[in-house]
Amino acid sequence: MAAAVVANGKKKLEQIGPKIGVISSPTNPMVTPLLTDLYQFTMAYAYWKDGKHNERAVFDLYFRKNPFGGEYTIFAGLEECIKFIAHYKLTEDEIAFIRKSLPPSCEDAFYNYLRGIDCSDVEIFSIPEGSVVFPKVPLMRIEGSIAVVQLLETALVNLINYASLVTTNAARHRFVAGKSKLLLEFGLRRAQGPDGGVSASKYCYMGGFDATSNVAAGKLFGIPLRGTHSHAFVSSFMSLDEITERSLKHLDSPKVCKDFVCPVKTWLTKLKRSRLLGGIFSETNQSELAAFTSYGLAFPGSFLALVDTYDVMRSGVPNFCAVALALNDLGYRAVGIRLDSGDLAYQSCEARKFFQTIEKEFGVPGFGKMNITASNDLNEETLDALKKQGHEVDSFGIGTHLVTCYAQPALGVVFKLVEINNQPRIKLSEDVTKVSIPCKKRCFRLYGKEGYPLVDIMT
Amino acid sequence: MAAAVVANGKKKLEQIGPKIGVISSPTNPMVTPLLTDLYQFTMAYAYWKDGKHNERAVFDLYFRKNPFGGEYTIFAGLEECIKFIAHYKLTEDEIAFIRKSLPPSCEDAFYNYLRGIDCSDVEIFSIPEGSVVFPKVPLMRIEGSIAVVQLLETALVNLINYASLVTTNAARHRFVAGKSKLLLEFGLRRAQGPDGGVSASKYCYMGGFDATSNVAAGKLFGIPLRGTHSHAFVSSFMSLDEITERSLKHLDSPKVCKDFVCPVKTWLTKLKRSRLLGGIFSETNQSELAAFTSYGLAFPGSFLALVDTYDVMRSGVPNFCAVALALNDLGYRAVGIRLDSGDLAYQSCEARKFFQTIEKEFGVPGFGKMNITASNDLNEETLDALKKQGHEVDSFGIGTHLVTCYAQPALGVVFKLVEINNQPRIKLSEDVTKVSIPCKKRCFRLYGKEGYPLVDIMT
Repeated sequence: MAAAVVANGKKKLEQIGPKIGVISSPTNPMVTPLLTDLYQFTMAYAYWKDGKHNERAVFDLYFRKNPFGGEYTIFAGLEECIKFIAHYKLTEDEIAFIRKSLPPSCEDAFYNYLRGIDCSDVEIFSIPEGSVVFPKVPLMRIEGSIAVVQLLETALVNLINYASLVTTNAARHRFVAGKSKLLLEFGLRRAQGPDGGVSASKYCYMGGFDATSNVAAGKLFGIPLRGTHSHAFVSSFMSLDEITERSLKHLDSPKVCKDFVCPVKTWLTKLKRSRLLGGIFSETNQSELAAFTSYGLAFPGSFLALVDTYDVMRSGVPNFCAVALALNDLGYRAVGIRLDSGDLAYQSCEARKFFQTIEKEFGVPGFGKMNITASNDLNEETLDALKKQGHEVDSFGIGTHLVTCYAQPALGVVFKLVEINNQPRIKLSEDVTKVSIPCKKRCFRLYGKEGYPLVDIMT
Repeated sequence: MAAAVVANGKKKLEQIGPKIGVISSPTNPMVTPLLTDLYQFTMAYAYWKDGKHNERAVFDLYFRKNPFGGEYTIFAGLEECIKFIAHYKLTEDEIAFIRKSLPPSCEDAFYNYLRGIDCSDVEIFSIPEGSVVFPKVPLMRIEGSIAVVQLLETALVNLINYASLVTTNAARHRFVAGKSKLLLEFGLRRAQGPDGGVSASKYCYMGGFDATSNVAAGKLFGIPLRGTHSHAFVSSFMSLDEITERSLKHLDSPKVCKDFVCPVKTWLTKLKRSRLLGGIFSETNQSELAAFTSYGLAFPGSFLALVDTYDVMRSGVPNFCAVALALNDLGYRAVGIRLDSGDLAYQSCEARKFFQTIEKEFGVPGFGKMNITASNDLNEETLDALKKQGHEVDSFGIGTHLVTCYAQPALGVVFKLVEINNQPRIKLSEDVTKVSIPCKKRCFRLYGKEGYPLVDIMT
């Protein structure tokens, strides 16, 4: 396998500790030996009862078809699998629950056997996490006592399935967006449960995203965090009178602007009177202007505003520019705007023109390059459509479609017995595609002279 | 609201403790105050800086469209929201991380404010969990200091979104399958992450499923567990010689059958020689026969076999029947079979005929009623198609499509500010469907004389 022995049971893992570090427990404390299907325990009992539980078995973990109608998959989830295996140990409380769940006729000695199980005899051979992989080639080969390896099956498949799916989805978004765009994962609220959100953030980063809005993921994995404010922040303000703390220090001098609302108002009037810009808007929304001013006062060095609460070009963009220009006078450089509804291509082009006009008309260097972030139900197709239409967006905030893998919400990773006691095993099926390939395999990826991969070979 | 005050901040919750019990912490330990978007903290800072953080705000949590092209949604996730709110408290470690994530210009006193936050002033008005609900009607109304309620937003939306989606999906599956069928949730391995699996089990049960394969969910929520064995179990056996422990006690007498393999073989020969059944099969697969025999010995009182590892009618069903009949002789009644591939309607009918023929030909009462479970990528459409074709399936094991909500993997739950300081607030938008309905609302469900609900009214 284009691979290495990654885990070799807890003991050996600890021996190679200095190389791969001490293995921490699974990110989600819910990843325990009970995170499995009941039949793994009923089978374990049947194997044990028959004295067959310690037979050496080889399982392949693989998938049958690339997701999203695509031609590749990114393998992910391995690290969490290793954490799970390294810490595999049933507690007394868990054993008591298993006893309650199996028929009372099951013998007591079986629970002693469960008590003693760890993964010190389990060997995992794996393709490195983050690799481009293809159908039917084993991603992981798991060897060990048949009963123990079966007990691992469900959690391993669970941990690889969604991880690989969402990493692949992120990589596909990156491919469509191009290298130069900033991609932000904004999916937590729409994800399938709390760790659907947290793992989505981890694996989207692995798949090529630049940052996440998810604070927990930022803390757990060190992923850069991004975020500004919501529509509710904007509509929570009524007028500029609400702004009580108005003073703002110049960035590079001890001077203080005592009433920051003043230059904001002045700039808005200048924009309105501008020959080139004045026609675009008349009165802007005052609660929005208050919200932007307040936000600018709180974050003068990283001012980024959501401009579509009322009307992007007739209110949001001019209000943003008034605050950004007032900040500019104090030495601060605003970051940009976010668009979250409507025709993103058109709006981004209009906003860009507005910024560029300001740069020229008022001589503010760099103002035309203001960052434009777009969000609102984006996915691979809409990214592609935006590209074709032409747009001025620098960053995309992508949520629902990315993290739930809307276009295909499951990857069919399977876990098949291919050898037991050195004898090859096959699963036949009425569905030809479900027939497994027997035997322990070695897999190679062949590279051409130029260093490009050509083909994967299994022997 | 057709509803009651469900949570009223931690203190009041504790006061009504005897009624609703002591509130435990969230099921998933990852549900912490950091499970939120960064912008909730940046906004909290801006509110605080402006002295606006304690203004009383009202937010509505609702969705805009029923999922799955359907006409209803089941509201779920409330209990987890209450647990989250009741335990809301930032740790020093979390505060340190937030400090690192915000610009260094943010004032120290803000972190003292965060330190003091709990949800004792937060009031939640909610429709009861498990209710049938409709678009735009608020599922929850959340009132409290604006900064605090915003900090709750992301987690609340996350906890309601998938919960309501998968509960609705389960209810739809139940509706199509009919009341008499047993519905089993088998989705853990394909779910979006570990607690995608665990919460799917919880909410599918709420939506009308009878049991799950997920042991962790069984332990956490008391959901009945189901499961037998996998294809790997079958293919791990070579021949009957492997069965070492062969004795089996009669169910209702002290008599012991010393070699259970004997009656199994005898029954298989009888079936083969039967005038009515013999034509269907000749030699059955011996590794499968060994697996079934071993499993029958381990679970004589609850024998259920997966019969499609090699060939359902030419091997699986006859092998199963041989073991089931041998068990029957010892007083045990087998449970049934599971089909996991191929034409489930046809196979179930053929298997049913086989069972009924045995009941008649060998005079085994009830054998014809043997349980038939079907699995293999089932969903609402395939359940419906099976019904139209006519089938003999008693239980359905449903996984991927159910738990990932394949037909629509996200519900668009939103959280909108509708009032602040008793002033109504609205969010306008370039998309008309995204405009919010301002003001605090009271909602009623009107019932006709016959007791059927007629309409929901918002005032």
